[in-house]
Amino acid sequence: MTATHPRLSINQATIKHATLPDALDVTAGAGLRSIGLWREPVADVGLTEAAAMLADSGLRMSSYCRGGFFTMPEGPERRASLDDNRRAIEETAALAAAGAPGSRAVLVLVAGGLPEGSRDLIGARARVREALEELAPAAAAAGVTLAVEPLHPMYAADRAVVSTLGQSLDLVDGLPPEVAGVTVDTFHIWWDPAALDLIARAGREGRIAAYQVCDWRAPLEADVLLSRHQPGDGVIDFEVLTRAVEDTGYDGDVEVEIFNADIWARDHRRVVAETSDSFGRVVAPHLRS
Amino acid sequence: MTATHPRLSINQATIKHATLPDALDVTAGAGLRSIGLWREPVADVGLTEAAAMLADSGLRMSSYCRGGFFTMPEGPERRASLDDNRRAIEETAALAAAGAPGSRAVLVLVAGGLPEGSRDLIGARARVREALEELAPAAAAAGVTLAVEPLHPMYAADRAVVSTLGQSLDLVDGLPPEVAGVTVDTFHIWWDPAALDLIARAGREGRIAAYQVCDWRAPLEADVLLSRHQPGDGVIDFEVLTRAVEDTGYDGDVEVEIFNADIWARDHRRVVAETSDSFGRVVAPHLRS
Repeated sequence: MTATHPRLSINQATIKHATLPDALDVTAGAGLRSIGLWREPVADVGLTEAAAMLADSGLRMSSYCRGGFFTMPEGPERRASLDDNRRAIEETAALAAAGAPGSRAVLVLVAGGLPEGSRDLIGARARVREALEELAPAAAAAGVTLAVEPLHPMYAADRAVVSTLGQSLDLVDGLPPEVAGVTVDTFHIWWDPAALDLIARAGREGRIAAYQVCDWRAPLEADVLLSRHQPGDGVIDFEVLTRAVEDTGYDGDVEVEIFNADIWARDHRRVVAETSDSFGRVVAPHLRS
Repeated sequence: MTATHPRLSINQATIKHATLPDALDVTAGAGLRSIGLWREPVADVGLTEAAAMLADSGLRMSSYCRGGFFTMPEGPERRASLDDNRRAIEETAALAAAGAPGSRAVLVLVAGGLPEGSRDLIGARARVREALEELAPAAAAAGVTLAVEPLHPMYAADRAVVSTLGQSLDLVDGLPPEVAGVTVDTFHIWWDPAALDLIARAGREGRIAAYQVCDWRAPLEADVLLSRHQPGDGVIDFEVLTRAVEDTGYDGDVEVEIFNADIWARDHRRVVAETSDSFGRVVAPHLRS
């Protein structure tokens, strides 16, 4: 068992079935300093109470998951989605203010897939840009960075039409970096022949708002959404990717975000301990600080 | 039921459980003019007999599947793989010579995944280039085009470290176009934000050796290898992609290649009829000739 790295953050999805107080408790109890929160468990206790709990925990918030899902054409559904994203921006700001110093007011955005019955991928992608432009003023006013996350191309139809880091960078181009950045997640980008160049570009352009790690292993789980593994349990080279991120000057928290039914079924304290251990062995050696 | 399009080719994988004589019979019987053959059913009858059967069928061969699987480091296993690829090149030439005029001496190459236990994706990719350089003289001597196929990034770990059309084009760069080209398969590239630009580039560089179509549908099948569907049954925009390929001047056969347990379980004659129908509705309207 290695010591808990000070930049390790547990993304709450890794212990999905924990309530917010439980998640804060096991995370702080294991000696971690940071946590990535999700909207649903925050909503379960209410924003004000959630902010108080986070403050009491002494933990930083590394990011808030998640907004997005705004690929649909103009109409009431799109308006509802954008309104909901504005609420998510406000929540991000409130929670980051309540978290320990170093908390990051970063809202992770998952674009959403093709609208039901649509094959217009190009149009859906254009609407992501339109949504970012529409949300940018609210983010700027709240001091929140929107972190557009490219998802692995296997999710392009049903989860996220944003499929590469390069596309994410193109989508935020022209918006202020403090308002619109990207999420770098090893699981989603490890395969990309341009991954290292794109990480360097993201750094040059000041866009790395979050760095998330987990591993890829073949064969995939039957539900490909739940096919994320602990760093070291798969084929991703965390040295190459982590050093590339570090070389940009990124010095923020590093989240372990795992969707995996087996891991979700385990005791949360055990999961946090296992995560701290795998992170310490596989990721931490490549962090500069 | 639409008439069978003269450029439609059934890739034999679509009727995987048919023997070579059965595959030729149902394909020609349905009025198709072309078929994409696979090595295993050819080996089952022997190359000489296979060539005679193809000649008797009156069908063109649109491509031969498949070579590749040469990502391992130097050693006996790599030598065996490259020797096997040389045999596949010879088979391709023999079969294309036996097929009807317009047969394409195209050997589809699937690179292979990461070697067992390896996380060195960059190294595996470099070894693909080395293999292509080593095989190029044999291909040139046999008049065969090696068609490097990018596979969807979800197969990068275990099937093909070549993940994008751009990467395929980079890998064959500098080799003569008649010796080394690429396979454009809608299933593998539809998600790519650069797909249309890359198809245009492939055309400009004279690299499109094969065009294969099938559809993507979410959720994926539990075995993601078997998640290919008939054109029209999923979310791919065949108009946009097919027009992009046609705009390059490509006028060769268009293969329907489907790996799908449900389709494999059906009567082969029915599958060929359904394929001809879906192709006629969804792909053929976008072909110039």
